[in-house]
Amino acid sequence: MRCDVVAVGTELLLGQIIDSNSAWIGGELAAHGIDSLVQVKVGDNIDRIVLQLERRLAEADAVIMCGGLGPTHDDLTREAIARVMGVELELDEALGDVIRDMFASRGRRMPENNLRQAMVPAGASIIPQTRGTAPGLVCPVTVDGVEKVVFAVPGVPHEMHDMFHRGIIPELQRRSGERFTIASRVLLTWGESESGLNERLDDVIAELDEAGNPTLAFLASGWNGLKVRLTAKGADAVEAARILDPWEERLRAELGDLVFGTGDETIESVVLDLMRQKGWSIGCAESVTGGLVGGRITAVSGCSDVFRGSIVSYASEVKYDLLGVPEGPVVSEESALAMAHGARRVLGCDVALSLTGVAGPGTQDGQPAGTLFCGLVWPDGEATQYFRLPGLREQMRQFSVINSLNWLRTTLT
Amino acid sequence: MRCDVVAVGTELLLGQIIDSNSAWIGGELAAHGIDSLVQVKVGDNIDRIVLQLERRLAEADAVIMCGGLGPTHDDLTREAIARVMGVELELDEALGDVIRDMFASRGRRMPENNLRQAMVPAGASIIPQTRGTAPGLVCPVTVDGVEKVVFAVPGVPHEMHDMFHRGIIPELQRRSGERFTIASRVLLTWGESESGLNERLDDVIAELDEAGNPTLAFLASGWNGLKVRLTAKGADAVEAARILDPWEERLRAELGDLVFGTGDETIESVVLDLMRQKGWSIGCAESVTGGLVGGRITAVSGCSDVFRGSIVSYASEVKYDLLGVPEGPVVSEESALAMAHGARRVLGCDVALSLTGVAGPGTQDGQPAGTLFCGLVWPDGEATQYFRLPGLREQMRQFSVINSLNWLRTTLT
Repeated sequence: MRCDVVAVGTELLLGQIIDSNSAWIGGELAAHGIDSLVQVKVGDNIDRIVLQLERRLAEADAVIMCGGLGPTHDDLTREAIARVMGVELELDEALGDVIRDMFASRGRRMPENNLRQAMVPAGASIIPQTRGTAPGLVCPVTVDGVEKVVFAVPGVPHEMHDMFHRGIIPELQRRSGERFTIASRVLLTWGESESGLNERLDDVIAELDEAGNPTLAFLASGWNGLKVRLTAKGADAVEAARILDPWEERLRAELGDLVFGTGDETIESVVLDLMRQKGWSIGCAESVTGGLVGGRITAVSGCSDVFRGSIVSYASEVKYDLLGVPEGPVVSEESALAMAHGARRVLGCDVALSLTGVAGPGTQDGQPAGTLFCGLVWPDGEATQYFRLPGLREQMRQFSVINSLNWLRTTLT
Repeated sequence: MRCDVVAVGTELLLGQIIDSNSAWIGGELAAHGIDSLVQVKVGDNIDRIVLQLERRLAEADAVIMCGGLGPTHDDLTREAIARVMGVELELDEALGDVIRDMFASRGRRMPENNLRQAMVPAGASIIPQTRGTAPGLVCPVTVDGVEKVVFAVPGVPHEMHDMFHRGIIPELQRRSGERFTIASRVLLTWGESESGLNERLDDVIAELDEAGNPTLAFLASGWNGLKVRLTAKGADAVEAARILDPWEERLRAELGDLVFGTGDETIESVVLDLMRQKGWSIGCAESVTGGLVGGRITAVSGCSDVFRGSIVSYASEVKYDLLGVPEGPVVSEESALAMAHGARRVLGCDVALSLTGVAGPGTQDGQPAGTLFCGLVWPDGEATQYFRLPGLREQMRQFSVINSLNWLRTTLT
């Protein structure tokens, strides 16, 4: 089964947005045993979209079109597919109502052109939208007497990812007639570089290459850590799991404390669970991160049972006056520890984590950009930690978040 | 002049590396007045590379191939170009010496396969390498009696960028004989949907389509707002600017207060500049956003001159005890205003912005997910605002950030 990708949008060709969607789609297709051999970017021009779609359909069994489903005059994916199918666009009344209701529920007037998103090529079926207004499309098309299919999904990643798993993968597996199951195990790690992990796992990787199934991949995901993914192909979920179990054990044995979670966990959800186990509430004092740690923790729904809040003490005076940090240089071990004690008192929490550092550009208190001091106070102890982090301003700040939370995890576990 | 791009590498299709090279190339070509209308990713397979290169050459005047120039067996770009040119690969002795010398100078043994990088299609010329071992190639090819050209550059960005400006742009300009410049103006807007903007600008868009130059595009950039971009083609920067000026004026007249900034500004940088104009310091009290507002503001380097900090009062007790919010439901106008007053007192700032709401899933204080109340206190006034926002938990929180900051802007401007 071969499924190529056509990403639609002039902004992709002008480099204003980098097309990461087709790379994501290629990775997911591969994980489900489907080849994606050519991926194309084309601008918002009906003739060129049609030509590129026809070229992909001539070579592949299926094509995923990503983007160009919005309501405006330059959203042309629907028209292009209809032209390739040789059919008209028809208004889907049910879709029209969904879109009208969405605007109504927000008490907003609906510009008429939003109904463009309810236009569907005759003979196509819908992948219902759950997050946006543009639905996905499943469009059967016959090419030289061969049954093929064109999928259309929005370019907004979280909308696209959701529709891909709900509407595209099941349809592709149905068409391919292949019945094997692909199952993955993801170990979340922090504290070692990709090449470092690679080295630690040299022997395991050699044995895996030998075995061929499961396969192993490293997925760098920025401040969500470095993921190690095992993917196995089995007759069913049970067999796939049986194949994965011993290899996951091997990986855990090799990686030890570097593994902080699995699957959809995050360092912040792991820290929150740790607090629940201990029966402790937690709060923060943030300077260099300006609220990113609190922002990350509160992204986890249900965090309110243990998370109290965070004191973003960006100005030195706030550190002195509110947190009781002794006057003087604020990028230091002493300051970090005082910030943690201050946050614990002000927020009335059992555990307090503090971050003070230099994001750059430029130095502060004689410390270079990349300097991070963390403080940690809990009911029966306290600790500080120094980090020297890479990256420009924003990257340094994001590394600060995961490094501080992972340090809290290893310190209190 | 049209120059398409073919990025070569199986890792690009598997999503192990995101192809940012073709986006960069597209942006640079546009800046030099050259169209890049289709960009393709293909894996390390000689037949497929040849087929995709032939397809690009059938449509474009020139093609840039990026990647596949390394020394290993799966670096096939040279072979593919030679096949399309209908010529043999020949060893370029001078190149061979350069590569041998490079290894010698590093005191390293040269694996023989490195000489693959000295193989050149007969009739091609060289873009000398200054940073790596793989040279670039300029390969003239005749397609249906028309003179066209294929360029080959390495996939390593800094090597590719260097060769692009040295060897590709001059050759393309020589061939096109054209000398015009492309210039863009970006207006950042908030407060109207993409379709709403499209409707407000219906007449302008019609006139622009008539004129053909400049062109207009909408770029949704999530919580960075909705961008409206004008792009003009002119003999030089001065003429391009002269073409853009009246149209930018038209857009500003139509969009009015929806426009919060231009170019690389952000809503937070605009708010910080507004505070500087007024000579006011600013702080926040965040509940539903958990620190995201502070995190966004502190992403702007140099914010410390006006930004004091943020009180992330996630637990109700922190709102009551630290900010002096009256006990009772905390998702309300009254609570939002009290939070702002409390933050202004605790942080010692001139302006305080507060956010309290329901990110969901589920309701709070009888309010549905998507509810946001904001409070604002400044030296000579106070205000509150209710928003009903779309989206799941994280999307709602991000909309809360830009809506609250944009409301602050319109209230205090």
